Amino acid sequence: MIEICTVGGYNEVGKNMTAVKVDDEVVIFDMGVHLDSYIKYTEDEDLHDISAAELIKVGAIPDDSVISDWRKMVRAIIPTHAHLDHIGAVPFLSNKYDAPIICTPYSAEVLKALLKDEKLKLNNKIRVLSPNSTLKISETMKVEFINMTHSVPQTIMVALHTKYGTIIYANDFKLDDSPIMGKKPNYKRLRELGDQKVAVLIIDSIYASEHKKTPSESVAKEMLRDVLLSVDSKGKAVIVTTFSSHLARLKSIVEFGKRMNRKIVFLGRSLAKYIEAGENINLVNFSKEGKIFKYANEAKSGLRKIMKDGREKYLIVVTGHQGEPKSILSRMVGGTLPFDFKKEDHVVFSCTIIPTSVNFANREKIEGDLRKFGVRIFRDIHVSGHAAREDHRDLINLTRPEHLIPAHAELAKRSAMAELASEMGYAPSKVHLVKNGQRLKI
Amino acid sequence: MIEICTVGGYNEVGKNMTAVKVDDEVVIFDMGVHLDSYIKYTEDEDLHDISAAELIKVGAIPDDSVISDWRKMVRAIIPTHAHLDHIGAVPFLSNKYDAPIICTPYSAEVLKALLKDEKLKLNNKIRVLSPNSTLKISETMKVEFINMTHSVPQTIMVALHTKYGTIIYANDFKLDDSPIMGKKPNYKRLRELGDQKVAVLIIDSIYASEHKKTPSESVAKEMLRDVLLSVDSKGKAVIVTTFSSHLARLKSIVEFGKRMNRKIVFLGRSLAKYIEAGENINLVNFSKEGKIFKYANEAKSGLRKIMKDGREKYLIVVTGHQGEPKSILSRMVGGTLPFDFKKEDHVVFSCTIIPTSVNFANREKIEGDLRKFGVRIFRDIHVSGHAAREDHRDLINLTRPEHLIPAHAELAKRSAMAELASEMGYAPSKVHLVKNGQRLKI
Amino acid sequence: MIEICTVGGYNEVGKNMTAVKVDDEVVIFDMGVHLDSYIKYTEDEDLHDISAAELIKVGAIPDDSVISDWRKMVRAIIPTHAHLDHIGAVPFLSNKYDAPIICTPYSAEVLKALLKDEKLKLNNKIRVLSPNSTLKISETMKVEFINMTHSVPQTIMVALHTKYGTIIYANDFKLDDSPIMGKKPNYKRLRELGDQKVAVLIIDSIYASEHKKTPSESVAKEMLRDVLLSVDSKGKAVIVTTFSSHLARLKSIVEFGKRMNRKIVFLGRSLAKYIEAGENINLVNFSKEGKIFKYANEAKSGLRKIMKDGREKYLIVVTGHQGEPKSILSRMVGGTLPFDFKKEDHVVFSCTIIPTSVNFANREKIEGDLRKFGVRIFRDIHVSGHAAREDHRDLINLTRPEHLIPAHAELAKRSAMAELASEMGYAPSKVHLVKNGQRLKI
Amino acid sequence: MIEICTVGGYNEVGKNMTAVKVDDEVVIFDMGVHLDSYIKYTEDEDLHDISAAELIKVGAIPDDSVISDWRKMVRAIIPTHAHLDHIGAVPFLSNKYDAPIICTPYSAEVLKALLKDEKLKLNNKIRVLSPNSTLKISETMKVEFINMTHSVPQTIMVALHTKYGTIIYANDFKLDDSPIMGKKPNYKRLRELGDQKVAVLIIDSIYASEHKKTPSESVAKEMLRDVLLSVDSKGKAVIVTTFSSHLARLKSIVEFGKRMNRKIVFLGRSLAKYIEAGENINLVNFSKEGKIFKYANEAKSGLRKIMKDGREKYLIVVTGHQGEPKSILSRMVGGTLPFDFKKEDHVVFSCTIIPTSVNFANREKIEGDLRKFGVRIFRDIHVSGHAAREDHRDLINLTRPEHLIPAHAELAKRSAMAELASEMGYAPSKVHLVKNGQRLKI
Repeated sequence: MIEICTVGGYNEVGKNMTAVKVDDEVVIFDMGVHLDSYIKYTEDEDLHDISAAELIKVGAIPDDSVISDWRKMVRAIIPTHAHLDHIGAVPFLSNKYDAPIICTPYSAEVLKALLKDEKLKLNNKIRVLSPNSTLKISETMKVEFINMTHSVPQTIMVALHTKYGTIIYANDFKLDDSPIMGKKPNYKRLRELGDQKVAVLIIDSIYASEHKKTPSESVAKEMLRDVLLSVDSKGKAVIVTTFSSHLARLKSIVEFGKRMNRKIVFLGRSLAKYIEAGENINLVNFSKEGKIFKYANEAKSGLRKIMKDGREKYLIVVTGHQGEPKSILSRMVGGTLPFDFKKEDHVVFSCTIIPTSVNFANREKIEGDLRKFGVRIFRDIHVSGHAAREDHRDLINLTRPEHLIPAHAELAKRSAMAELASEMGYAPSKVHLVKNGQRLKI
Repeated sequence: MIEICTVGGYNEVGKNMTAVKVDDEVVIFDMGVHLDSYIKYTEDEDLHDISAAELIKVGAIPDDSVISDWRKMVRAIIPTHAHLDHIGAVPFLSNKYDAPIICTPYSAEVLKALLKDEKLKLNNKIRVLSPNSTLKISETMKVEFINMTHSVPQTIMVALHTKYGTIIYANDFKLDDSPIMGKKPNYKRLRELGDQKVAVLIIDSIYASEHKKTPSESVAKEMLRDVLLSVDSKGKAVIVTTFSSHLARLKSIVEFGKRMNRKIVFLGRSLAKYIEAGENINLVNFSKEGKIFKYANEAKSGLRKIMKDGREKYLIVVTGHQGEPKSILSRMVGGTLPFDFKKEDHVVFSCTIIPTSVNFANREKIEGDLRKFGVRIFRDIHVSGHAAREDHRDLINLTRPEHLIPAHAELAKRSAMAELASEMGYAPSKVHLVKNGQRLKI
Repeated sequence: MIEICTVGGYNEVGKNMTAVKVDDEVVIFDMGVHLDSYIKYTEDEDLHDISAAELIKVGAIPDDSVISDWRKMVRAIIPTHAHLDHIGAVPFLSNKYDAPIICTPYSAEVLKALLKDEKLKLNNKIRVLSPNSTLKISETMKVEFINMTHSVPQTIMVALHTKYGTIIYANDFKLDDSPIMGKKPNYKRLRELGDQKVAVLIIDSIYASEHKKTPSESVAKEMLRDVLLSVDSKGKAVIVTTFSSHLARLKSIVEFGKRMNRKIVFLGRSLAKYIEAGENINLVNFSKEGKIFKYANEAKSGLRKIMKDGREKYLIVVTGHQGEPKSILSRMVGGTLPFDFKKEDHVVFSCTIIPTSVNFANREKIEGDLRKFGVRIFRDIHVSGHAAREDHRDLINLTRPEHLIPAHAELAKRSAMAELASEMGYAPSKVHLVKNGQRLKI
Repeated sequence: MIEICTVGGYNEVGKNMTAVKVDDEVVIFDMGVHLDSYIKYTEDEDLHDISAAELIKVGAIPDDSVISDWRKMVRAIIPTHAHLDHIGAVPFLSNKYDAPIICTPYSAEVLKALLKDEKLKLNNKIRVLSPNSTLKISETMKVEFINMTHSVPQTIMVALHTKYGTIIYANDFKLDDSPIMGKKPNYKRLRELGDQKVAVLIIDSIYASEHKKTPSESVAKEMLRDVLLSVDSKGKAVIVTTFSSHLARLKSIVEFGKRMNRKIVFLGRSLAKYIEAGENINLVNFSKEGKIFKYANEAKSGLRKIMKDGREKYLIVVTGHQGEPKSILSRMVGGTLPFDFKKEDHVVFSCTIIPTSVNFANREKIEGDLRKFGVRIFRDIHVSGHAAREDHRDLINLTRPEHLIPAHAELAKRSAMAELASEMGYAPSKVHLVKNGQRLKI
């Protein structure tokens, strides 16, 4: 029998974790942090002084006590991609389980970097599995990684093959036929699985209420091209900020930087970390095409050189797209890094504002300050990494699961997926709107 | 001395008209309708039974009585492009003035079609002037058409050269370096004018409060490509609707239709009218690449043929992007045209909702009805044709006018342009926030 | 055993109907219309030509085929109050059931008026039961009407007493301690029921996401007083429009009209209908305090008299608060009724806009037209008749039900009630987010 | 000749200051701070270490250098009421001018408290003038205080009588016929002034785009009554927070606290300051009816006593309505003050959120934290202190000024007042949309 415990990410966007029990073996998908709570709680702390119990209590990581009776049965922990809301709690929770962590090479590199940053150690073995590969994890279960597109490299959907049918875990994906890095989604394999038997589809529902297909990353690239290559920036600084783990976006930025005949520099710890992870496995080679300044002191000397050489010779990529107070961009604006903005310098926000009131306040502040300098601001040069309703419809049509578990948001948002399912002919009894900590027998 | 009368389009978005008096000669820029009021008032009426006075009274066309004392001095009437809010009142107002209408070839074709539709006659001569050309219109004044990008072919900015300096009339433009039809904006010439002396810039301010650059039409093309070529539409109808006069968008649709191996059909009077205008001057040749059904009976037989041949063989382009009740799309949905929607047919809205409550209600209705059929809806596949704040900044930097007259919206929106001007160093006395019917001496 | 079928009002706001089966006897709570669909479908039709089947198909009334196997078991049909979304489908559906309609005197009067209007006949007996009374309806079941506050007179909550415990049906209520008509909610009895055993609470959840207590009708009265008595209206018309069935609001309007020394007139069919229903049972006596003009011809002569006597002598109460095109207010504005608005006449909208795009469009139009006359508009002089989250909490604390069924809205809105329940300590298994047509065994 | 310099409050909401020059004498109306900038800049600083120049530079107080050539001519400085955006810059700027400060008794008390707090000294004499009184300030000018309603006691409109007619300065007012403290607006006198000649009306335009009359404070009182007296709070804490200077609101809270049989305590410096100012001149006597704890240590011992005696015995009034991090409420929530929230304690926010992103973030945080404790939140128990469009219309009708200067907001908002004026028949040349630092000759 299949039993599913929705540990985290069903009351909120964040701290994703789902456990699937097949007879007496358990697989865990994702162990993520709740970004806001995590940052609030940890920002002035040394991470290895903080216990998992504390982090659970403040809602920063999933409360895995709801599966304490399953602890010994866990056979694998599978983070689907390198975003912190999917992989960030591994350092705090995985030691409790005597099971390997199975993930793609890029996710493994990021995980190692997190552990190094946080000076933490794992007892678990990290097993690397490439997209479009399969691994037997027990006598009766196989794990298959299906290549998928999202906003970080080597994101996969997981198909867990059991004797009761296949369970597909599809948290965080888009269907992008023109990705800038990596391959298209493996539609062929998804259709094959649908032709066999998919028992359950656990599916990212965050934008199920948006009646559209999420645009391809190629659209974001075209928007970037338009802003970087069409607007006259002669003599001006051009500063771009985006999600640090979004290597495809960074690749486009590098490409246009070269066409602008500007030297490319990356400033900030988080940018350096995700780029290094990519370089370790030869996904990118930005070190060759630009210069990376990781730590505060390096950033300082980097900026001093830019000021000396002439701002117009550089394309400056920085952290701080949400206006985070300690980011490079905020410190450049605040004057604690040696850069002085001039009238009509360019700042490009290649992102959306993640809609929390803290982010709105931070961005309003930084944009206001930039405007006081007379800086030109280009916003929302971005497309989402999450599927919308028409993509959901496609995935459901391809895989034709018997049961659907809408995931990755609070109930009100997930209910839009239930609506879509009903529209597609699913009976209410096949669509499960569960909450954190519930168990579902199928 | 220069005196400017802001006749219409300064209290609202629509019915644009501005008169410029230089000593004792007058030039009129644009004579447009207020689309909402115009449609409401004229929809069940025969246009040649309606007097200009009536249309003025209901706010459908500009109230040109405010320049009645200038009537004899008018030397030229210059519609800058073929949109109805700029050219649509010419049939009703221009006969009062003994002056030629000067416009680009495409605008002239559209104007002729309007006159034919409405069975109206003009006494005025229509003089065609190409983009990037100049015409002497009196002893002391020359008119220059500067090539510009917008959402309809052959849009121009006008430079009126007088002994007191140049007046640039820049109502409706974007700065698009990758246009899909026509050439890039003539930046070189704008800069030259700036190096000489621009006395006044009258400037489209509708999006002056949006801190961004309006994306290129190439972005809309990429979005369209993504939706039309990436989503599986095998066996399904694919119906696209967009602005009828947006030939560049239609060109992209045709291109992708061919790549989908579908026959292209255009249905609807308004689509046919604007395409014909373009074909008359060899801008496009859609008749060769597809089939155009103009009138209701033609549309019926066209749809019958599609139903018979198989919907999956066609890309169907129709009127009705705002959900207008009498459009082809609404009549297809309502069942008064012979088409029956099937589950998972595609409808692509390549437009935004023009934000009036009538449009919101119409679109909500049509989308609701489509959803009842199980149709897949793809919305907002669109970029705007209007400049935003960072484009405005570019135009002002290029032309460096002494005086600025924000235009093309009600006061509250235009005030954002005043804010930008102040940010760029303009004294309040150089920025003129005027209303309909005011006169300004410069 | 208790089995509950949620027939209508669980996928939408409207067409409320819930059937409760206790062993082999069934009680039906509410039979309402979906107002929008109902109006759209019936506006140009004669109602007795329309079949229930048609109305079900277009979504105008609940689809009661889902309880066709229970048909013979129905013992009572209980509309809880006189709003059309709760009582309006009785004329179309109740004949199928061999059971009496049990409701309060005011609801009974309104029901009779509906039947008369629509020239329809019922086979069912109408049994009148007063608030705070109990009726035995079978060997094993008693129905109790608990006095409640809402925006129409004699609204009740129903307690269905069975051997398995009490079921409380609480659709449409607010907790108003200072009602303008009728008594306060019967808190005492609710608490007593809670002290015994409430098995299920079916609860209006439309504003469960609003963290507040819905203000008392006394607040609306104070707002009205402020607008009617404080603003100088000497020499001007004063026109008020509100919900026709909201007799408490009308009572406040009448009171202030008298203090303004103006004669009160009511214009419009719907106003007349609900007032008559109230007068029939001596709830109000507006005929004595003002004059009621029901039909179009009466309205015409009434308005002619007002124009002749002097507008400043009257307080004019009219239909049309949502800008409905055929209402008295719309026809006064449109000129098809003999009234001419003058500059600075007052129009008071004592209502909110019910948030549908049609209403927004209608209100925008009528307000725009009024403004062209220079009329002064006073909007949103209103408080809601529906409970919000803090009222819900109070009701749950009073009744302490074992099971909760959030009702009266689509899933996304109802999920806020599930959130509240969880906050109050309810296990997910006790809170049932069901859809139209589902059955639930308890 | 009259010349008006709009020093501050015309580009923003805040730092109000307007100078009026009549021939060679100048009167200054208001000297306020820009609250946000002021707080940001001063929160960790000792105020008497900060120079006016610095505060001007960061936008915290008006830049009065624009009237440096008028300095010697200033005859009076007139803060119209005790809000910081009108009086708060007096301590920093008034010393430059050899002129008395003329204000109502309550404003004088608040000003003295500010000076004491900030350990600053003024050279200027403070002259107290009661509402509805007149003072001759020079050979040719008289100042008249007209009684007005707003959200702080003893707010006045100023009529400056000159030989060129009267100038009315009406920044911050509402027209409240049922005020809870003080008298109604002096309509009679306003009408008399209108019958004579009002040359200029400088008018608060912040809500000119809202088509309504601002409700009376009596409506807020009724809302408060409903929440405090109707909701069962037996055994629970009841905590209320509102604007500290809003003594009328506090008076209602005290009244209801007594009816609840709870002891009233006020906690927080700012509350204590404004209450003391009112007690000094016998406007209120809250010290008799409750207990006031001003400083942190007092607050601590006060809360300890409440915890010991039983929370249910108290009505606790605190600072922190915007969620300000250092307020009493935030510190109670954060645990740095000795109070522990229990499930179903009540917190009443008798205010709106002043719409800045910082406030939204702060309130979201504090409400989220309160909800974690299970606290019941009652929000938006409030009406505004600022006039809306229908009040503006009334004031203009009463005073019939020749010229209008919309004030108290950025251009976009003020343009709604220009629209109203145009609707009322004013020519554009009589309505002056000026910016900070401009001068206007009339």
